[in-house]
Amino acid sequence: MEVVNKYVSLKHHVDGYPSESDFELSTTPLQPAPGSGEVIVKNLYLSIDPYQLDRMKRYSSSHTTCPAAAQIEPEQRIDAYGVGKVVASGRAELEEGDVVAGLLGWEQYTVVRPGTVLMKVDAKDLPLSCYASVLGTSGLTAFAGFYDVCKPKKGEKVFVSAASGSVGSLVGQYAKLSGCYVVGCAGSKQKVDLLKGKLGFDDAFNYKEEADLKSALRRYFPEGIDIYFDNVGAAMLEAAVANMNPFGRVAVCGAISEYTNAGKRAAPDLMDVIYKRITLRGFLALDYLHLHEQFSAATSDHLRRGRMTSLEDVSVGIESLPTAFVGLFRGDNVGKKLVRVGELEG
Amino acid sequence: MEVVNKYVSLKHHVDGYPSESDFELSTTPLQPAPGSGEVIVKNLYLSIDPYQLDRMKRYSSSHTTCPAAAQIEPEQRIDAYGVGKVVASGRAELEEGDVVAGLLGWEQYTVVRPGTVLMKVDAKDLPLSCYASVLGTSGLTAFAGFYDVCKPKKGEKVFVSAASGSVGSLVGQYAKLSGCYVVGCAGSKQKVDLLKGKLGFDDAFNYKEEADLKSALRRYFPEGIDIYFDNVGAAMLEAAVANMNPFGRVAVCGAISEYTNAGKRAAPDLMDVIYKRITLRGFLALDYLHLHEQFSAATSDHLRRGRMTSLEDVSVGIESLPTAFVGLFRGDNVGKKLVRVGELEG
Repeated sequence: MEVVNKYVSLKHHVDGYPSESDFELSTTPLQPAPGSGEVIVKNLYLSIDPYQLDRMKRYSSSHTTCPAAAQIEPEQRIDAYGVGKVVASGRAELEEGDVVAGLLGWEQYTVVRPGTVLMKVDAKDLPLSCYASVLGTSGLTAFAGFYDVCKPKKGEKVFVSAASGSVGSLVGQYAKLSGCYVVGCAGSKQKVDLLKGKLGFDDAFNYKEEADLKSALRRYFPEGIDIYFDNVGAAMLEAAVANMNPFGRVAVCGAISEYTNAGKRAAPDLMDVIYKRITLRGFLALDYLHLHEQFSAATSDHLRRGRMTSLEDVSVGIESLPTAFVGLFRGDNVGKKLVRVGELEG
Repeated sequence: MEVVNKYVSLKHHVDGYPSESDFELSTTPLQPAPGSGEVIVKNLYLSIDPYQLDRMKRYSSSHTTCPAAAQIEPEQRIDAYGVGKVVASGRAELEEGDVVAGLLGWEQYTVVRPGTVLMKVDAKDLPLSCYASVLGTSGLTAFAGFYDVCKPKKGEKVFVSAASGSVGSLVGQYAKLSGCYVVGCAGSKQKVDLLKGKLGFDDAFNYKEEADLKSALRRYFPEGIDIYFDNVGAAMLEAAVANMNPFGRVAVCGAISEYTNAGKRAAPDLMDVIYKRITLRGFLALDYLHLHEQFSAATSDHLRRGRMTSLEDVSVGIESLPTAFVGLFRGDNVGKKLVRVGELEG
């Protein structure tokens, strides 16, 4: 039975802030007859991530350095992590009705190619959306970045930027579970309240209300910062380095403040880097697939026991996808931005 | 017998390029009667190092972050690593005539305070000057920075800036001994020839002749850079990061191009740092004293067997010290800058 597949693609490359008019919604017929090794998935929840903007640019150094950052061409299918339901399978280990997580796309149905990893999801006691957020790549990014890159010790002082975002909100919670002191920054009072309330951060502030980020961090960290989990880059990274303690570690995870402005760059003081023996390290979740089982077991357990919260911000329908994505750069989302493009039943 | 001690001090703090007129030569009488734990040393070779300029500034973030970077005040005694001869000892383990290496000063005689480490030098088969250069802090910096921070693997591609300088010239030689491919940059044809000839670098270039450092590095590293040993900061660091391979490592050792210009800062592309999973790490030799024995034994052996060269640039007399120091920032020195302030005999 042929289905109609709605998908969202780029009209043209995007430099600077994206807007809804950069995208278009199209339809294409889909014959649910998978080839050998292919799987046809009805998409349920898609993860909406800021790094995709870098892939939409006319030029970024990253396009040629890492397959995960490959440039997205106009009209091309846009891949995205998500959760879906198998509607037809050309793989022995998967059958119709199975729920899977993996690289899907900005569309209602994805033909998953042979070789692309799909993980079977046994979603009995946790909401399905969790597998696209806290138990998906955002979760693994937070887990690997915090534990492997930052190497936290109990009692250390941790600063997280974009702390109410998909990765930041989890880093802060892992840090609290590890006995660290955690301060986050975000872009609104509502988000700051959420960090201090629901997510249990020790403190939080609205960076838009701080004229001088260096002094702000000196106020929030009178004893200095040991770990900075960087999701924003630019001036915030500079201010964090200026306030770091000797042997401080910076996990360079994202640079959302730089994505929309090619001229914006972090220039941390190298005298700080040298004399405080600071390490700055870029990383990607895809290098940590060997940690997935450990991450998934530990995090599911935290969720079940109520020791962690999955903060999700869900839009409904493939039509809402452009706005969901564009909103990331306006700070519209509170927590992990997801789009529910389909329902499990039916 | 009272001696006259000539010493060099600052007239005032120095911002920007230093000049000879920023320093003054004074004399003070010295009674060679050490207190308990004190040692009076006649200085022979002093190590002249660019990082001291950072200490002479009116303000630098490093002044308060690390005792090794403590600000130098006008008229104050200026400490410096060097080699000297004990003329009077208040320590049981040292006696008159012993040759020692440690923190001395910009003067003819230094009263070494109790607790300050002095290492006995058994200089039978290697020139005494080696203990202030290749076997001194420059050597330990190169050894620890290259082996511990850069973690080289055979066949990796290594780029060294300020490659004919005290640390760079050694890093390049360690890299060759480790089976790496090494390219250095320096500021004159003479230095470039020396790197390719005497020091055995695979290639070298004069950065002053390159309008575009990024393209220059692309030419010298068509297969990309795995390790960048950074002595200069600013645009060279940016260009190196742009040309790095996945999992590249940057040892942030010095930033000579930034010392003389507070507005000059490296702003490497964070998209490169993230997608190529680059690590940038600042370090100081003083954290590696536990490696001193291993470093010293291995390096002495390389020198004896002619597998390493100690490139030294020696000025004579305490009066030459200001010019020796100022010359570092004009690129006058070729190799380790030393001042011979006294003779072993007499």
